[in-house]
Amino acid sequence: VREEVDRQMSILTRGMAETLPLGGLERKIESALKNRRPLRVKLGIDPTTSNVHIGHMVPYRKLREFQDLGHKAILIIGDFTATIGDPSGKNQERPKLSKEEVKNNAATYCDQIFKIVDKTKAEVHFQSQWFEKKGLRDVLENAGAFSVAHLMSHETFRGRMRSGERLSLQEMLYPMLQAWDSVEVEADIELGGMDQKFNILCGRDLQKNRGYEPQSALFLPLLPGTDGQKMSKSLGNSIAVLDSPQDIYGKTMSIADELMPEFINLACKEKDFPQDPFSRKKAIARDITSQYHGRSAAIGAEEFFEKTVSQKEMPLEIPNLDISLDKRNILSVISLVNPGSSKSDLRRLVQQGGVKWKGDKIINLDFQLEDKGNKDNILHVGKRKIFKINFIK
Amino acid sequence: VREEVDRQMSILTRGMAETLPLGGLERKIESALKNRRPLRVKLGIDPTTSNVHIGHMVPYRKLREFQDLGHKAILIIGDFTATIGDPSGKNQERPKLSKEEVKNNAATYCDQIFKIVDKTKAEVHFQSQWFEKKGLRDVLENAGAFSVAHLMSHETFRGRMRSGERLSLQEMLYPMLQAWDSVEVEADIELGGMDQKFNILCGRDLQKNRGYEPQSALFLPLLPGTDGQKMSKSLGNSIAVLDSPQDIYGKTMSIADELMPEFINLACKEKDFPQDPFSRKKAIARDITSQYHGRSAAIGAEEFFEKTVSQKEMPLEIPNLDISLDKRNILSVISLVNPGSSKSDLRRLVQQGGVKWKGDKIINLDFQLEDKGNKDNILHVGKRKIFKINFIK
Repeated sequence: VREEVDRQMSILTRGMAETLPLGGLERKIESALKNRRPLRVKLGIDPTTSNVHIGHMVPYRKLREFQDLGHKAILIIGDFTATIGDPSGKNQERPKLSKEEVKNNAATYCDQIFKIVDKTKAEVHFQSQWFEKKGLRDVLENAGAFSVAHLMSHETFRGRMRSGERLSLQEMLYPMLQAWDSVEVEADIELGGMDQKFNILCGRDLQKNRGYEPQSALFLPLLPGTDGQKMSKSLGNSIAVLDSPQDIYGKTMSIADELMPEFINLACKEKDFPQDPFSRKKAIARDITSQYHGRSAAIGAEEFFEKTVSQKEMPLEIPNLDISLDKRNILSVISLVNPGSSKSDLRRLVQQGGVKWKGDKIINLDFQLEDKGNKDNILHVGKRKIFKINFIK
Repeated sequence: VREEVDRQMSILTRGMAETLPLGGLERKIESALKNRRPLRVKLGIDPTTSNVHIGHMVPYRKLREFQDLGHKAILIIGDFTATIGDPSGKNQERPKLSKEEVKNNAATYCDQIFKIVDKTKAEVHFQSQWFEKKGLRDVLENAGAFSVAHLMSHETFRGRMRSGERLSLQEMLYPMLQAWDSVEVEADIELGGMDQKFNILCGRDLQKNRGYEPQSALFLPLLPGTDGQKMSKSLGNSIAVLDSPQDIYGKTMSIADELMPEFINLACKEKDFPQDPFSRKKAIARDITSQYHGRSAAIGAEEFFEKTVSQKEMPLEIPNLDISLDKRNILSVISLVNPGSSKSDLRRLVQQGGVKWKGDKIINLDFQLEDKGNKDNILHVGKRKIFKINFIK
């Protein structure tokens, strides 16, 4: 048992930011092995968005590791709380989503996480299973377990109060609801990002109060974006789960060398990587691409990368983009090739140097593309989109 | 209509401490008269005790005035919130009552208030009618109407937080529940003591939020006890609704002259009283006794009072009280003649000078009654109980 505990600990603590209480995870594993009872490892899914990037997948990868060690993955789809919105880290009340939106998001979200989590070995619960049945008396009973002073120690709540921004009583009930999930599914472990620390520890408090053994909390760090900043769709530095194999591979290849350890720890499945930085980065890109598209797609993406970006620094064929008028605003042009992006996303892409015209970065949002000058009319949009612009008069 | 509004206002504002918003009551009356729709006047009953004194009856007397003017009395029996306890003015969490205790208290309480309120013209609601059916989603919806900053402005909550005493999230939900009652019964007016100000104004907020016209709030002052302090059973200065006619009459006669205006305004039904202080006080005592025991019992009580306390300063017949042993602790003796009082009540009665032995106040809780000395063994307990102690050897 001792050796198996050590083996599981070495796998599970890899890439972990923090675990609470001290020694809790180890004791849980030990008791699970002794009693031949797999651990129930809870992870909440927030279906307020369906736009998932590989940074979101860090805790799901950890959950898969638990599954591979014989433990039970308990996925909680926060369909009930999504209609309120987790205030953690938010400096204003969030727009409420309709049940329909939440349901659609949840379906799309799950499709994506089951690329990592083994669906056949996971319990999936919708919060509404239990929350739709709870009455006022249940709410009051659980609310008795929380002191207002403790809730007000939540950094988000304190910050909102201090700055005079509205914090509603509804939002203050959010940590209790997430904690309640842990009671309902009898979680032994809850996984989450560091921003979930307060809520996950509330789960421990409520379990204790209701006479259950409190869960251990495992916190995972954030995966940086391709530019080293926080990974975020709106910053244009994210790798989406639904990106093409070429995009996942190429975006991963664009990270700085010093980000490689974090990508290995938090985003990769393999453990052994070549020492040489370029081979190492390719192995990382292959690993990540494989996880979402399979081995052969990853090899195909690598070949495409070598043929295009790596060997020639430019794709073999540059597509032509016809635009009317001989003078067009930069934003209106890039909106043609990024039809899914919002105006603020496009603005940010420009301001952060993601757009080049004739090889020069264009930061000015009022810049006009004109059919003049001695260089080719080449437009780079982000790292991987290149067009030759034809002005149609 | 104008004259009738003025007439109702002059009756209803008599003895009122405060009404919010300014002019609200007048507008409600006016609109009730114009639309021939009686006002729905809400008053909550807290069935955490069944020990009712005439100070508690001040708002019920006001409610009766509304009834006599043709408006509707809406009594809410707080059977649901009683199992939590109103934190207002309390510096610690209250012990929770069982449903059985609450039910019994409510029955006893109602028996007493229907001495004042016209039962045939009152709607009586148990909160559990609606609260037992409410779900978590209803709770969250209503909780969205309250900001934490506003709730924390409640003096009780602020005080508890400041002094470091535990304030639970459950208690913080209390004002919302009381407010919810106002939504459920579509209250036009809510009556209450000044300690209910926060909760009653929360009712306005919630009604507004849910699209109803907000209620007007009417606050009534506290009736002082017979000694001018806050009326309270445990201070031995209260006049209980269930006291005998002789006790109600006698206790009222024991008030200081300067308390007479408050007793007239808050506890009496009549408006005209004699100028001479002694006749005036007797008229007050008769008025109050009549309200709880009827006219003839009040006249009987007056005769008893004149025969005993007033003319001789001592009852005609002093009952004998036999006690074993020739030396007995003061507390154990007075517990014999006050079987319903708690130990702390008795201790307070002694400490506040309510007990005399041989004509002298006994403050010392360790005092032993002994069968010696040259005076009669006369024991006064409170203002109206007198015994001659026989020590049985």
